[in-house]
Amino acid sequence: MSTRILWIFLLVFQLSILQAQETSKNNLQLMPWPQQVELNSSDFAITNEFNVFIHGEVKKDSRIFKATTRFLRYATDKSGVFLKEGFPNAKNIDPETASVQIRFEEVSEVKLGIDESYSVHVDASGIQITAKTDVGAMHGLSTLLQLLSVKDGSYVFSGVKIKDEPRFVWRGLMMDVGRHFMPVDVVKRNIDAMAFVKLNVFHWHLSDDQGFRVEIKTLPKLIELASDGQYYTQAQIKDVVAYAGDRGIRVVPEFDVPGHGSAFLTAYPELASKKGIEYTLERNAGIFDPTLDPTIEKTYEFMDTLFKEVAPLFPDVYFHIGGDENEGKHWDENPDIQQFMKANDLKDNHALQTYFNIKLEKILSKYGKVLMGWEEIMTENMPKTALIHSWRGVNEGLEPGQSLVEAVKNGYKTILSNGYYIDLLLSVEDHYLVDPMPSVDLTEEEASRILGGEATMWSELVTPLTVDSRIWPRSVAIAERFWSAKEVRDIDSMFERLNTISQSLELMGIQHKKTPEYIFRNIANYQDTHALRTLSELSEPFKIYSRNAGGTEYQTYSPFALFADACTADAKAVRPFRKAVKAYVANKDTNSKEIIQHYLGAWSSLSEDLLTIAPKAPLTAPILPYAKRVSEISNLMIKGIESGKLTKSQFDTISSLLETKEDPSLNLDVELAVSKELLELATYLAK
Amino acid sequence: MSTRILWIFLLVFQLSILQAQETSKNNLQLMPWPQQVELNSSDFAITNEFNVFIHGEVKKDSRIFKATTRFLRYATDKSGVFLKEGFPNAKNIDPETASVQIRFEEVSEVKLGIDESYSVHVDASGIQITAKTDVGAMHGLSTLLQLLSVKDGSYVFSGVKIKDEPRFVWRGLMMDVGRHFMPVDVVKRNIDAMAFVKLNVFHWHLSDDQGFRVEIKTLPKLIELASDGQYYTQAQIKDVVAYAGDRGIRVVPEFDVPGHGSAFLTAYPELASKKGIEYTLERNAGIFDPTLDPTIEKTYEFMDTLFKEVAPLFPDVYFHIGGDENEGKHWDENPDIQQFMKANDLKDNHALQTYFNIKLEKILSKYGKVLMGWEEIMTENMPKTALIHSWRGVNEGLEPGQSLVEAVKNGYKTILSNGYYIDLLLSVEDHYLVDPMPSVDLTEEEASRILGGEATMWSELVTPLTVDSRIWPRSVAIAERFWSAKEVRDIDSMFERLNTISQSLELMGIQHKKTPEYIFRNIANYQDTHALRTLSELSEPFKIYSRNAGGTEYQTYSPFALFADACTADAKAVRPFRKAVKAYVANKDTNSKEIIQHYLGAWSSLSEDLLTIAPKAPLTAPILPYAKRVSEISNLMIKGIESGKLTKSQFDTISSLLETKEDPSLNLDVELAVSKELLELATYLAK
Repeated sequence: MSTRILWIFLLVFQLSILQAQETSKNNLQLMPWPQQVELNSSDFAITNEFNVFIHGEVKKDSRIFKATTRFLRYATDKSGVFLKEGFPNAKNIDPETASVQIRFEEVSEVKLGIDESYSVHVDASGIQITAKTDVGAMHGLSTLLQLLSVKDGSYVFSGVKIKDEPRFVWRGLMMDVGRHFMPVDVVKRNIDAMAFVKLNVFHWHLSDDQGFRVEIKTLPKLIELASDGQYYTQAQIKDVVAYAGDRGIRVVPEFDVPGHGSAFLTAYPELASKKGIEYTLERNAGIFDPTLDPTIEKTYEFMDTLFKEVAPLFPDVYFHIGGDENEGKHWDENPDIQQFMKANDLKDNHALQTYFNIKLEKILSKYGKVLMGWEEIMTENMPKTALIHSWRGVNEGLEPGQSLVEAVKNGYKTILSNGYYIDLLLSVEDHYLVDPMPSVDLTEEEASRILGGEATMWSELVTPLTVDSRIWPRSVAIAERFWSAKEVRDIDSMFERLNTISQSLELMGIQHKKTPEYIFRNIANYQDTHALRTLSELSEPFKIYSRNAGGTEYQTYSPFALFADACTADAKAVRPFRKAVKAYVANKDTNSKEIIQHYLGAWSSLSEDLLTIAPKAPLTAPILPYAKRVSEISNLMIKGIESGKLTKSQFDTISSLLETKEDPSLNLDVELAVSKELLELATYLAK
Repeated sequence: MSTRILWIFLLVFQLSILQAQETSKNNLQLMPWPQQVELNSSDFAITNEFNVFIHGEVKKDSRIFKATTRFLRYATDKSGVFLKEGFPNAKNIDPETASVQIRFEEVSEVKLGIDESYSVHVDASGIQITAKTDVGAMHGLSTLLQLLSVKDGSYVFSGVKIKDEPRFVWRGLMMDVGRHFMPVDVVKRNIDAMAFVKLNVFHWHLSDDQGFRVEIKTLPKLIELASDGQYYTQAQIKDVVAYAGDRGIRVVPEFDVPGHGSAFLTAYPELASKKGIEYTLERNAGIFDPTLDPTIEKTYEFMDTLFKEVAPLFPDVYFHIGGDENEGKHWDENPDIQQFMKANDLKDNHALQTYFNIKLEKILSKYGKVLMGWEEIMTENMPKTALIHSWRGVNEGLEPGQSLVEAVKNGYKTILSNGYYIDLLLSVEDHYLVDPMPSVDLTEEEASRILGGEATMWSELVTPLTVDSRIWPRSVAIAERFWSAKEVRDIDSMFERLNTISQSLELMGIQHKKTPEYIFRNIANYQDTHALRTLSELSEPFKIYSRNAGGTEYQTYSPFALFADACTADAKAVRPFRKAVKAYVANKDTNSKEIIQHYLGAWSSLSEDLLTIAPKAPLTAPILPYAKRVSEISNLMIKGIESGKLTKSQFDTISSLLETKEDPSLNLDVELAVSKELLELATYLAK
C-alpha cells in the first residue's frame, strides 16, 4: 500500500532523531539545567489520584495557588490523566499524603535579587518542592513539569533530587513592540513561556520610529497621531504587569530617547532638533535622524509629564530610556543647538546626549526610578547608579561585549545583550556559547556588577504571527545560559533537550510550531503543503540583517506570511543530514547512506511536487526556481551516491548550482542551509 | 521514489475535493450569500499599486479607518502582495483613482436595527463600496475580502456587482464563559471572525454554576470565591465591548438567574433558597438545584447592586437574565417560600419565577435596560417589552422552536436558538436548514417580531484550546441563514463555499485548523501524527450530549486535549467517501472505485502505523483498538472491492465489526462517521 511506503519513508526520516533520543534515554530533559541533579530510579507515576497541597497560609488568589493550578492543567493536558482534584488544597486532599507537597517560607516581592532557589525531590513515595520564597517554589513547579515524561509506556515524574538556584539575577527577554505592535495575548503567552524556562525580566520596548505604544492621557497626541491605533491602554499595561508579576517576572519599560524619535516627533514636532519638516511614522527599517532637542526646556517638561504618568504603571524600579543609535545629524545642522553646546561647554554630541541623560536621570529619580539605557549612555558624567545595557559588537565594528567590561570597571552595573540578538536569526548554538561573564580578569566586585543578560527580539521583520517562532525555542538556550552553571555548554545535549522543551512550549500556547504550517497552507492556497514543509526543513531565513538589507524592501505593512517567515534558524534537516554526511564520508556505512538517500529522495521531487500545486497557488511562483535547483542537485547526488561516485561534469554542475550568483533562493530571502554538507558529499564522491 | 508515491497518494486523496472545486469554477466563494449578485468577467487584479480611499471626513481612530487597515493586512497576507501604501487615505493616494473607493453617509451607532446595507462593484477599472452607514461599508469590505481569489494563476478581486442587506437584524453568537472561562484574546479573535461573516451580536454568557466571570467591585466575593481566579476585569470588559463596537457588533451580557446559581450562592449563600448547606462551584455538567430565593428582599438588593454596576459596562440596551432550567426543587423544600407563594397567590414555581423576573425587569428598566431571557421567562404577566430567547425543542420533549411562535403570537419580540446549538456537534447541514421564520402562518406584524437568531456555544466540554474548532466553520453557515435569502439552501454549494471561508478564518487568527494538529502532536508525544490525522478524518465526536452523558465523566478541569477534542463534526472524509460509494454502487465506475480504494488503503494501515508510535505515546493506548477495528474492516473491504464481491462470512465479519456493542470507539467518545457508507458498500458487494 502506498500509505505503508509513506510510513516507512517517514520513519526513516525520523531515524536520526530517534537515535538521538535513544542515546539520552536516561537523561533528563530539563532546561535550564539545574545546579545539582541527583538521579534515582524511583519515579512517581501520575494517576487520577495525583494532587497537590501547598503548606502554610494560602489564598486562592495568591501567586502560588494560581501557578499550581496552571501546573495541574498543563500536566493534565500533557498526560491526558483525569484528576479527581483539579485544584491544589481541595477539601478532600490530605496535606500529609498529597502527591506533591509545596513548602516555602515567604511570599516574595517581585524585584531584582530576590531568592529564587528551590529544591525538588521526586521518588515513588511522593514529590516535595521546597523553597525560600513562593517565586522559588514556582520555579520548582516548572522543573517538575519538565520532569513529566514517558517511561515504559506511561507518564511519570522522573525520580530525582534537584537543588537549584540561578547564576544571574537578571534574565531577560526584550520584545520590541514599536516596529510591529504585539497585542496583549502575544505578550502574555510569551510571558508564560518565559516563566517556564525561568526568565525573570520582560523588557518592553514601547516606542520607536515606527510607533508609540502606550496610552498617555496627558499627552494624547502620542496615540492619536503616532500609534496607527496600535497601542496598549493603561488598563492593559497594568494587566500585563500583574500577569507577569503573578509569574515572578519583572517588567521593565523602555521609551527610547532622544534618537529613534520619529513617533514622538510625529505627535509633538515642537520637540524636534530639526524644525520645519513634517514628521511621520517611519514605515521602513533602519537608523533615522529624527531626534529630540535636548537644549530646550520643553523637551524636559515633556519627558517629565511622560515619566510622571507612566512611572506608576510599572512597579519595577528600573526604567529604560533607550539612548542608542542617536547619530546627532540634526544636532549638527541646528545652529541653536550648536550655540547651546558652546555655551555649556559640551564638546561633542556624546556630551550633549549625556547632558540630556543626566537630566532624565534626575526626573526619573523623582519618580523613584533608576535609569538604565543602551551602552551609549555611558559617559564620564553619568551617575554610577545608571545601569548599562551592553549591546554592540562585531556588527558595529567593536569587540563583542566591550562596553560590559568598561561598565563594570567604571563602577556601573550592567547586563549583556550582545550575543543574544535573536533577530539575527543565527543558530541557537551561537547564542548558547556566549557567556555574560567575559573571559577577562575582573575583581570579584567588578564581576558582581554583571547582573545577567537579555535576549532581544527586535521586530523590523517580525509580526504577531511570527514572533513566537523567532523567540522560541532559541531563547530557551539563552535562558539556560543565564541560569545554569558556566560549565553547562554541551551542544549536542543542548539541542536534544531544546527539542523536548520546544514541544512543551506548545502547552503555554506558543505558536512556533503552528504558524509555519499555517503559512504553508496560505502559500499553497489550501492545497497540499508537504513540499513546502520539506523545503523549509533545509532552508533558513537570511541572517544578520541581510534580509531587508537596505531597510526599504519591507515596510511595516508588508506581508510577513512568506516562505522565509515560515523558515527558522536551525532548519530541521540540517543537523541530522550533516551527521549522516560526516559519518558517510568517514565510514561509507550503509546506515548513513540510507539516511542520505532518503533525504535526497524527498528533495529530488520537490520541484515536481510544487509544480502540481502552483497553478492554483500564485505564492509558490517565487519558490519554484529554488525548489527546481534543490531537486536538480538532489537528483545528481542520488546518482552519485548510488554509483559511489560523481563524474567531473556532475560535480561541476552541482557545485555551480550550489554557488551560482543568481541563486534563486535569494529572491526568497532564505539560504539553502545544507549547501556545505552537499558540497562536502559531492567533493567526496568526486574524488 | 517513495515521495513520488506519497505525492500521487495525496493527490488522489484530494481528487473529490478538486472535482468539487472544478464544478464551481465560476461560482463566487461568498458567505453569507448576498441578496443580489451580478457577475461580470472583468476582474480587478491586486498589485503593489492597490490602495484604498475612504471619502468624507475620516479620522484615523474611526471604525471604518481601522477596519480598512485590517482589510489591507488580510489582503496582503493572503495575496503576498507588497503594497506601496499600507493605509487608506495615505498622502500619495489620489481620491479619484484609488483602487477601492469607499463611500457612506453616516457613522452609525451600534444598536439593534441599524442600516447594514451596502453595495460592492468590482470591475477592471476599480472597486466601489457604497453604503448608508460605516457599518454597512465594513460589511462591504468583508465581502470584498471574500472576492479575493485566484484566477488564471494570480490573485484578483472577482468582477461583480453586489447589492446586499441582511434578512434578520439580530444575528448572534453566544459564548458560554461560565462553564469554561475564555480569555480576552479568545473572545476577540472570535469577534473578528463574526465580523467577517456579518454576525452582529456577541451574547456573553457570564455566569453559571461553574463560575462567575466579571469583577464586581461592590460584590467582591463573586470573584474571590466564585471564579477560580478566572474572570474579566471591568477594564477587560470595556476593552472587549469597544473591540466589538469597532466591528459593528453589539454585546449582550447574560447573568443567569435564579437557577444556574451555584456560583452566586458560593459567594453569597444568604441568597439561597435552601439554607444550611455549603455551596461550592460546580465541577460537573448538568442541571443543578441551587437557586436564588425570590421571596427575600436581600435578593433584589443584590440584583440591584449587581445590575447597577454592570449596566454601564454594556452600552447595548438588551440585558439577558437567563432564567432557564430552574427546576425549583429548593423552592418546593422551603416552607418559608411555600408560605410566601400562598400569601402572594403564586400558584406554582413558574408563577414565582415570573414574580422574580418582573421585579428584575423593573430594576433593569431603572438602568435603561430591556430584559431578555430564555423562553421560560415567558408567562402571562411578563411585560411585552421582554425579549424571548427561544431554545427548547426535541431534546426537551417539545416542538422545535414552539416558544418562538407562542412569543410572537403573544406580542413578544423573539430570537431563535433552537436548531443552532452548535455544542450538539451535529453536521452543519442540520443547522443550516433551520430557518428562524417558522413555517406556520403568521401575520406580518407577528413575523416582524422574529428578530433573528443566535448560535449557542455552551462550553461544558469546550475550552479555550478547542472552542474555535467547535464554533467554526459551522457558524458561518448559520450566519448565512440569518443574513441571506430564505431560498439560499443548496447543501452542496454551502459545503463548497464553507470550505473556502473556513480557510479565510485563519487570517482572523481562528485556531480551528491549528488546534487538531497540536492535539495530534501531543497525543503522539511528538512523533509522527499522520495516522491520528487520518483516523480523525473519519471520526466525529459524540453528538447530542452523549459525550459526558451523566455529566460526571468530565469535570471542568479534565483534560480536553483528547482524540475526541481534535475530531470535528462533518469529518473530512465523510462526504467525499459517501459520494464515491454512492457513485460506485450506482455505476461501478473506475474513478469511484479508485477513490474508495485509496481511502481504504489509507485506513487499512492505521492500526499498524499507530502501533509504531504507541510505545512512546501513552495517549494512543485507548485509540489502538479503534484503529485496529477500522483497519480490519478496511482490509476486508479492500479484498471485496478488488474481487468485486464479498463472501457471506466476510460480510458478516464487517457488519459485526461495524455494529458491535463493544465498539472500541465508544471509549474515545467518537463515532465512526463512515459506518453507514461502509455498510452500504459491503451490502452491495455481498449481493
